[in-house]
Amino acid sequence: MKIIVIMAGGAGERFWPLSRFTHPKQLLTLTGSGQSLLEEAVERSMALVPPANIYIATSLHLQKAIQDADLGIPAENVIAEPCKRNTAGCLIYAAATVLARTNLSPEEVTMGVLTADQRIPDTAPFVETIGAALESAENNNALITIGIQPVRPETGYGYIEIAENATPVANPSGRSLFRVASFREKPKPEDAAKYIASGRFLWNSGMFFWRLSSFQNEFGKANPVMAETLEDLTDALMAKDQDRAAKIFDALPNISIDYALMEKATNVMVIPGNFIWDDVGAWDALCRTFPTDNKGNIRIGDPLLIDCVDSIVYNAPGQKKMAVAVAGLKDMVVVVNDDAVLVIPKDRAQDVRKIVTALRDRGATQL
Amino acid sequence: MKIIVIMAGGAGERFWPLSRFTHPKQLLTLTGSGQSLLEEAVERSMALVPPANIYIATSLHLQKAIQDADLGIPAENVIAEPCKRNTAGCLIYAAATVLARTNLSPEEVTMGVLTADQRIPDTAPFVETIGAALESAENNNALITIGIQPVRPETGYGYIEIAENATPVANPSGRSLFRVASFREKPKPEDAAKYIASGRFLWNSGMFFWRLSSFQNEFGKANPVMAETLEDLTDALMAKDQDRAAKIFDALPNISIDYALMEKATNVMVIPGNFIWDDVGAWDALCRTFPTDNKGNIRIGDPLLIDCVDSIVYNAPGQKKMAVAVAGLKDMVVVVNDDAVLVIPKDRAQDVRKIVTALRDRGATQL
Repeated sequence: MKIIVIMAGGAGERFWPLSRFTHPKQLLTLTGSGQSLLEEAVERSMALVPPANIYIATSLHLQKAIQDADLGIPAENVIAEPCKRNTAGCLIYAAATVLARTNLSPEEVTMGVLTADQRIPDTAPFVETIGAALESAENNNALITIGIQPVRPETGYGYIEIAENATPVANPSGRSLFRVASFREKPKPEDAAKYIASGRFLWNSGMFFWRLSSFQNEFGKANPVMAETLEDLTDALMAKDQDRAAKIFDALPNISIDYALMEKATNVMVIPGNFIWDDVGAWDALCRTFPTDNKGNIRIGDPLLIDCVDSIVYNAPGQKKMAVAVAGLKDMVVVVNDDAVLVIPKDRAQDVRKIVTALRDRGATQL
Repeated sequence: MKIIVIMAGGAGERFWPLSRFTHPKQLLTLTGSGQSLLEEAVERSMALVPPANIYIATSLHLQKAIQDADLGIPAENVIAEPCKRNTAGCLIYAAATVLARTNLSPEEVTMGVLTADQRIPDTAPFVETIGAALESAENNNALITIGIQPVRPETGYGYIEIAENATPVANPSGRSLFRVASFREKPKPEDAAKYIASGRFLWNSGMFFWRLSSFQNEFGKANPVMAETLEDLTDALMAKDQDRAAKIFDALPNISIDYALMEKATNVMVIPGNFIWDDVGAWDALCRTFPTDNKGNIRIGDPLLIDCVDSIVYNAPGQKKMAVAVAGLKDMVVVVNDDAVLVIPKDRAQDVRKIVTALRDRGATQL
């Protein structure tokens, strides 16, 4: 059986003030399509597996908001980890949940992992590639990833390195797989430029495909304690012992799937993705998702711009409409919500996290 | 009799979004004192003449708001011109009103003209100088102005030139008067620097003092039609014929008192002002009126600033408090009101007018 797990547990703090603790980035309409990122991700998945086989893995405090968003999958498929344990914990919990519910063996379940913060404007080539990845994973013991052909020396993404002179491995899906030589964290600008020049580096899309038996085996070699956790957790969930499950889960380290598994695993393959892909990570990403005027500005919600260039001005319609007027801006982001205002240079968009932390420290938790 | 007329008819558009059509700059608290500019101006005047002798000249649409502000002067002393005819019209209307109401001859009334958009932190030296100007005007046929000793080569103000080797004219007030050689409009930076270096230029404070007979005589020479208007208007107002008064007033050209009278008059004297004075003309003026933090920022209303320098962030408390968070700003102005947001670089603060015009063109007249 093929299933898809969409990871949607992040806070998306960098999209403050639109993203909030109980209304995260995934539920925002940030791509210009009118749909939320999560809606889009579910819709794409429906072209690959039946709705009952689509799971959304999220946090407890977001579970209800996502269920209420009515995305066309069973409400019980919106699963929430008992506590936050990063992407490694998230995927172990999702795998255990599926195994416990379906009563299938790990050999029988092939899991595709997608994320909820991607912009993929063309669905057809995406679906073709993900379909090939799922099929390859079903017929292969490897952990399979999708690597996106880079279109700029982005320093905000991780990279996947294909070995020099790597020979593509043919497989039944018709798409070639390449053995992964290494994963690289977000690089410095000079390294990013080298990666692009080499032609052997792809963007790490954060999408993974594996049979659960491969997942378990590779974890057994890379991180035996976590492989055991997966088995114990499956047992606890089959026994419907939520307390024990929570206790087992709580003991997991708070580390990413890249760090816990992918970087250490020996059998990792990548399929180059031939579709447009964008990680909608922070406000500056909107420059790549929304149409701009002839001065490079993005205007959302009818703000007034005078003599501005390359700026993003977002006036979210709230209960009470604010008039937003800006002049003489260059490379700035201005976001106005129903109860908050953000002003930040585009190249500091990552620092919105600092703002959220500072507001939290002030005790403004409703924000 | 000595009277003071405070001109408060301007829209103060450059303080949008705080200033509005029916709530102009003069009623805003912009100096850090907690009082509105107009409140401060009236309070200063009360040290010079009785409350019954203080007039506020404003526009029809602002008359009620100013009367309601309850500034301690008779409500009927808040006078409104029938239509906008710039500062020349304003002062002709005020003079005619006073003459009509008091039934005094122009020789018997000495008028001091102050404005409502000045910051004068030290009242004592101001009152001393204005007192001397009023007394000088009462005992002299000249039109008397106050020139402020410049403290920077400001290009946003007009300048008053004292003739080279001018001999101060002693007068009963104990303060010396200097003959004015010329008035200069807002200069270019290089000219402003020359003015400062010469030591002969003072800032034009927009304060004027004259016996109404001198006012009428000088107008008679500089602009005979306007002198006639003053007489006709006085007659109409004495006859309580508002329609005729409005018709007479309507015929006046829309020009400033500087252009209509001061620049053309032959007998103009200036008293150098030895007090701190600031024209609170636009948002960037707040840098000189509010205390700054150690990075040169002004924070009003508890906004969150991260890594900002020399910026002004004003979060006006409205019915619904907005959270305002900014990061990485330099020399920016961010103003958040109950229903509007303004973002503009400090050196473009004058362009707020363009914004107000553009909003009006959009039909957003409530803003």
